[in-house]
Amino acid sequence: MEVKRISQAVISRLPRYHRYLGDMQEQGVERISSAMLSEKMNVTASQIRQDLNNFGGFGQQGYGYKVDHLRSEIGKILGLDKNHNIIVIGAGNLGQAFANYSSFERSGFFIKSIFDNNPEYKGKMIRGVAVQMMDELEDYLKENRIDIVVLTVPKSAVVEVVDLLTRNGVKAILNFALTDLDLPDDVVVENVHLSESLMKLSYNMTKK
Amino acid sequence: MEVKRISQAVISRLPRYHRYLGDMQEQGVERISSAMLSEKMNVTASQIRQDLNNFGGFGQQGYGYKVDHLRSEIGKILGLDKNHNIIVIGAGNLGQAFANYSSFERSGFFIKSIFDNNPEYKGKMIRGVAVQMMDELEDYLKENRIDIVVLTVPKSAVVEVVDLLTRNGVKAILNFALTDLDLPDDVVVENVHLSESLMKLSYNMTKK
Repeated sequence: MEVKRISQAVISRLPRYHRYLGDMQEQGVERISSAMLSEKMNVTASQIRQDLNNFGGFGQQGYGYKVDHLRSEIGKILGLDKNHNIIVIGAGNLGQAFANYSSFERSGFFIKSIFDNNPEYKGKMIRGVAVQMMDELEDYLKENRIDIVVLTVPKSAVVEVVDLLTRNGVKAILNFALTDLDLPDDVVVENVHLSESLMKLSYNMTKK
Repeated sequence: MEVKRISQAVISRLPRYHRYLGDMQEQGVERISSAMLSEKMNVTASQIRQDLNNFGGFGQQGYGYKVDHLRSEIGKILGLDKNHNIIVIGAGNLGQAFANYSSFERSGFFIKSIFDNNPEYKGKMIRGVAVQMMDELEDYLKENRIDIVVLTVPKSAVVEVVDLLTRNGVKAILNFALTDLDLPDDVVVENVHLSESLMKLSYNMTKK
């Protein structure tokens, strides 16, 4: 499928479509109109049509979308038809919380290992995965195909860790540290900045 | 200050400006041009000017911005000149990780209590705050002014908990559960959907 340059705003909405279509599949819904999808998702029907038309559209005028087909096509666009190997760096509460999410596996995201520099965590089992020490990380990356690294280290450790990751071929990082990563052009990042989410809430509260 | 209706995209960028200006303050920088800020932040200078002009602008042509002043004005826009009381629902790894972040306090966000329905956690101290049981939550909300609730409960518990929260005057929720909350119009929400962040990474990886 030919895909043109798509805005990040559109991409951000695709996982939500994917999730709703999964809920509908579970409920046995086979076909859905953009109007019905719109009502459920609280997005305008024209927004849905526009978003999906970026990828060639998947519906037929007056006929709606086939739920299975649309979900699997959106899944392919998101790359969910492939498995992704993940490691978590930082075995503190946040790293452990992340590694404990079982629902990621249903979308093909597999936590393969967890690293920390605190010897207290060494060998600790988290959902069947043993925590390894940071000095084992470089060899590990040379020997294993890792698609995504989840970074839950303190801000002060970020530069050194990111340098090691990118030198060893890591191309995607989910970053929880409250700092922007300085990355080569071919490495992608998603930031989860919790204090910034609190600030947005704070702003929006005052406007209601 | 009069503030017109501002897009969420602009609001999303304000915490990052606030953070960079804080870094500059620490480095003793007193004045900065939008061009310099733009280079540091990897955003165009015209974007910065446009964003700040939404709030009346804060610079003088050819003179730049006063770092202290601009940071404190952005802080006021975000509501950071007031303290916010927070409770966390769910004392699992994620709830504990959240409650352990010390940096939130610097922005005026204070974790006042943590609730869970698992008696194992009862009374457990997390950064000086004791975990309380869920059956104490309603009385607690009646007796304390809580500004923001951080929701780290399983999807299956969401409807019941959110109903209790909104019935007791909660107006802002930071939601980690992978489901959209059905909320009254006067309640604001920020979603942190980690599996959706992984999906965005997956998409963007394939495009590089």
